[in-house]
Amino acid sequence: MKLEDIKSPEFLKDLSIEELTELATDIRKFIIEHVSKTGGHFSSNLGSVEITIALHYVFNSPHDKFIFDVGHQGYTHKILTGRAKEFDRLRKKDGLGAFLKYNESSHDVWEAGHSSTSLSAAAGFLEAKATGADIGEVISIIGDGSIQNGLAFEGLNYLGNHIHKGIVIINDNEMSISRNVGRLARSLSKIRIKRSYEWVKKITPNFIQRLLRRLKNALRSLIYGGNVFANLGYKYYGPIDGHNLKELIRYFQFAKRTKSSVILHVKTIKGKGYEFSEGDKNGNWHGVGPFDIQTGKPISNVDENTINWGKGICEILVEEVAKNNKLYIITPAMIGGSSLQLLQTKFPDRLIDVGINEEHAVVMAASMSRNGLVPIVSIYSTFLQRAYDQINHDVARNNNHVIFLVDRAGINGGDGSTHQGIFDIAFLSHLPNMVITTPKDLNEARNLLKFAINYDGPFIIRYPKRNISRIEFVEEDIKLGTWVEVLPINDVNIITYGDEIQKYKDKLQNVGLINARFIKPIDLQMLRKLANKRVVIVEEVVRSGSLASLILDANIKEHLNIDITQYAIDDIFLDTGTTDELKQELGIDVDSVIKKL
Amino acid sequence: MKLEDIKSPEFLKDLSIEELTELATDIRKFIIEHVSKTGGHFSSNLGSVEITIALHYVFNSPHDKFIFDVGHQGYTHKILTGRAKEFDRLRKKDGLGAFLKYNESSHDVWEAGHSSTSLSAAAGFLEAKATGADIGEVISIIGDGSIQNGLAFEGLNYLGNHIHKGIVIINDNEMSISRNVGRLARSLSKIRIKRSYEWVKKITPNFIQRLLRRLKNALRSLIYGGNVFANLGYKYYGPIDGHNLKELIRYFQFAKRTKSSVILHVKTIKGKGYEFSEGDKNGNWHGVGPFDIQTGKPISNVDENTINWGKGICEILVEEVAKNNKLYIITPAMIGGSSLQLLQTKFPDRLIDVGINEEHAVVMAASMSRNGLVPIVSIYSTFLQRAYDQINHDVARNNNHVIFLVDRAGINGGDGSTHQGIFDIAFLSHLPNMVITTPKDLNEARNLLKFAINYDGPFIIRYPKRNISRIEFVEEDIKLGTWVEVLPINDVNIITYGDEIQKYKDKLQNVGLINARFIKPIDLQMLRKLANKRVVIVEEVVRSGSLASLILDANIKEHLNIDITQYAIDDIFLDTGTTDELKQELGIDVDSVIKKL
Repeated sequence: MKLEDIKSPEFLKDLSIEELTELATDIRKFIIEHVSKTGGHFSSNLGSVEITIALHYVFNSPHDKFIFDVGHQGYTHKILTGRAKEFDRLRKKDGLGAFLKYNESSHDVWEAGHSSTSLSAAAGFLEAKATGADIGEVISIIGDGSIQNGLAFEGLNYLGNHIHKGIVIINDNEMSISRNVGRLARSLSKIRIKRSYEWVKKITPNFIQRLLRRLKNALRSLIYGGNVFANLGYKYYGPIDGHNLKELIRYFQFAKRTKSSVILHVKTIKGKGYEFSEGDKNGNWHGVGPFDIQTGKPISNVDENTINWGKGICEILVEEVAKNNKLYIITPAMIGGSSLQLLQTKFPDRLIDVGINEEHAVVMAASMSRNGLVPIVSIYSTFLQRAYDQINHDVARNNNHVIFLVDRAGINGGDGSTHQGIFDIAFLSHLPNMVITTPKDLNEARNLLKFAINYDGPFIIRYPKRNISRIEFVEEDIKLGTWVEVLPINDVNIITYGDEIQKYKDKLQNVGLINARFIKPIDLQMLRKLANKRVVIVEEVVRSGSLASLILDANIKEHLNIDITQYAIDDIFLDTGTTDELKQELGIDVDSVIKKL
Repeated sequence: MKLEDIKSPEFLKDLSIEELTELATDIRKFIIEHVSKTGGHFSSNLGSVEITIALHYVFNSPHDKFIFDVGHQGYTHKILTGRAKEFDRLRKKDGLGAFLKYNESSHDVWEAGHSSTSLSAAAGFLEAKATGADIGEVISIIGDGSIQNGLAFEGLNYLGNHIHKGIVIINDNEMSISRNVGRLARSLSKIRIKRSYEWVKKITPNFIQRLLRRLKNALRSLIYGGNVFANLGYKYYGPIDGHNLKELIRYFQFAKRTKSSVILHVKTIKGKGYEFSEGDKNGNWHGVGPFDIQTGKPISNVDENTINWGKGICEILVEEVAKNNKLYIITPAMIGGSSLQLLQTKFPDRLIDVGINEEHAVVMAASMSRNGLVPIVSIYSTFLQRAYDQINHDVARNNNHVIFLVDRAGINGGDGSTHQGIFDIAFLSHLPNMVITTPKDLNEARNLLKFAINYDGPFIIRYPKRNISRIEFVEEDIKLGTWVEVLPINDVNIITYGDEIQKYKDKLQNVGLINARFIKPIDLQMLRKLANKRVVIVEEVVRSGSLASLILDANIKEHLNIDITQYAIDDIFLDTGTTDELKQELGIDVDSVIKKL
């Protein structure tokens, strides 16, 4: 069938199982073809085709509420709700969003991008339903990685005590973004392996169920060592074959019919239906760029003399880890995302993947640092937001020696408003004891990391998602809070940091250029040299709380009378677009800034 | 015995059970007497006397690590580690801290103040131990309220999969700070009630245990409906009588001896040993000011024409909730802390206590607001830090209509560095769509709340812990982002906000005074009137990201040439002291500011 002609999911109700199965095949083909051209979230979307078809077959969206956790697995939902023709502009400026979006469709009833909000969101829908709001069934669809986050636990704990019925579908592909960790993963996997316990799966009428439930739980406990979900107050059913439409529909119909809250544990194969992604254990097919369908190889126009920042940083880490047995790298499920594969291969014991547990990662790091280790938390800028209190209360307050490698800092293309790394300086710079840096290239990154390892306190090294030139390493003995006068101070001067320093250097004439590699503490000595001169500060983060804020503050405190202009992101959230597009629109790209000098 | 003579817990090892019991009585008496004079955390300390004695009897601190969650229950630990004589200066400037403190004792191996970090902290100790650090047993002591927080779940999930042994003691008084909520609480309470299952409690040799474990779990599942902790990979023992030293010691010795990770579920009575606190269900005795031991009545010198801000806000809430059936107030276990008792009495169905689940509270509020309700999250400034990402990603990003009543904003006495409300403006002001206000009195608070209820977007109303005059209510039709010229603009002007406006008004002469009740958005029109004049901005929050930052930014953007001086908290964490003491030390109290004009 022509997926582009779908206007609404209504048509599904009239299809037979065979026709639905055929539809699943068509959708899978569509996803592979389109994502191979545009890039996007891949494995999770191939894994959730049948679940989504069955949801729309059994329930009536948007009266029944589908709350997709994160929303990166929403492609089939987008197709079935009339958005197939927009897939050519997936993840592009003003195009189809990477996640679900309120402004795309009335079927997108919950918007996210960060994980594990879907259960608390369901609680909010149910609270509203309890007051009389016209809301049908409330269904959270959450992955086995996301459900291990603390927020998900809080939501589940709340829902378990709620008088109104909720439905939770665990989409369990045994790996979340990458390999699962933690005890809950082992619990899930025990349940998965032993499918002999078949009669849990049979849906029997309610009255028999009630009689059997206690005995069932006891037996299940004997066989599997208990089930954490059942203990939180849910009727638990599973594992269910997530690629068998008949089975899925039967369970969903039961969930719709029953009066009490249920968890349906659905087992899926991430990357299902495409040979290269099905076998992927490391999350390499979680999110992809354009690739060749035949070979599975990325189609890349990237200069071979460049490397992505994450990979470059990982090579430096490998070098340092080899020399210093106190170093431990902690990642919240981002071995693939942050390009830590080389570290995983070479020093698996020094890389701790805690799963999507950002808060735990930071507290554990604080504790490790108090016990003589040097923990390095490698994390996306946007996900570091999730551990703000732990950075404040557990790291900065006691000046604990924790290094943060903040990946995807600044403007990021593709993922949209939930993934821009534009808040980190604002939420970190007001914390006492915090040192914040952004290197201009991999050499400076290496020297800053060496400095950070020997420093004794919290230390942030930020870097973006884009590619950067490979260069020779030159040791530099960096001093805390020092900037570099890249082009001599002049009447007009640019202060900036990060990998656009080189571009400014190449293009500026008769203008001073300062590399403010330390955003905090600032280089007061250098700043004093700029007294009574004109300074233009350029940053790709929100204005408030940025480097410019710190400079403005010093300017009045020290009566420097610097004439300051700030280019940064005004008080707005940034949606999808390439980094270049968004910078140009904001007027903070190199050319625009120079034009305005 | 004279508790002031204790130098170290070593002496405990030679005492008999009878002597230990006598010691417990002495300690309890000491705590009641001292806290009745100084104020402090009360119920939790009376509840944990025997647990702490038994810990120090069985284990060897600081080689064995006691990781007290929060640390508010540490008085017995402080007494046994030689700090009894300092209790006269409890919670006072440079005196004994409210929580455990690294700089007070080598026995304080983990420092907190915010809840639920103790399990992730234990993981950090165990990681270090695994690398060869000289660390004995690692023991987390955590309350039944704290363990329901998502961070605690993340820690437990990690520990459950850890190869190294940890010990977790759940101090379960069935109420956490106030009444427990959520499904986990019901699980715990099932376990509590049925003590018939006695043979779980018997400590049998390891080899028999291994044989029995599976059957035991199955039986327990039959009786109690399963146990969430056992499923997370721990050997679970309990409930244990937390006031029976013999039983506690037996279990602690077993936990020390055994090779695998254990959870000991200890049942205690919060407020044990003092008639008024033992019956307290609402958390009124969680933290107290000075009181009369005979009557249990607070000793207060407070002017009867004043009321604490929290109570005043609650009265306004009661009034608004009566009029508008869309309003719901959400509190993270702070009915007592934020003085919401009147609301609880009058409108119990409109007050949702989610337990210590700040992240869940904010996401659920976002979801409720999208479904037509008007959720009001009542929360301490310092605990709002725990939901930074949810405020950013789930509320501000979609401009959802959630009102935050931010209690204990600004400098707070007593609780020390973990409880200062000095970061909120910095971590909120850089968020797009966010409106931030601080009323100068209860009348302005009422008018701002009325405005907020009709506004459509995130709205913050901040207020401090201290008392404020009761005043007549006068309706004012407030406009977004408007300041008030309290004293006419002059050559020199003070811009500030909050309840010191009145003091400035009474004392200033020939100086303009502006009430910046909207911290964001700022009143640009008023600011323009200040062009070319001198302005002194006074705030009791950290400098960076404060109102002054926003004004400095506008000053350059609009070329206003305002001569700005900022008084705020420099880049430091603030420890214990009264609000007045700390302000004076910082030079930001009314008199100091006026002197410096």
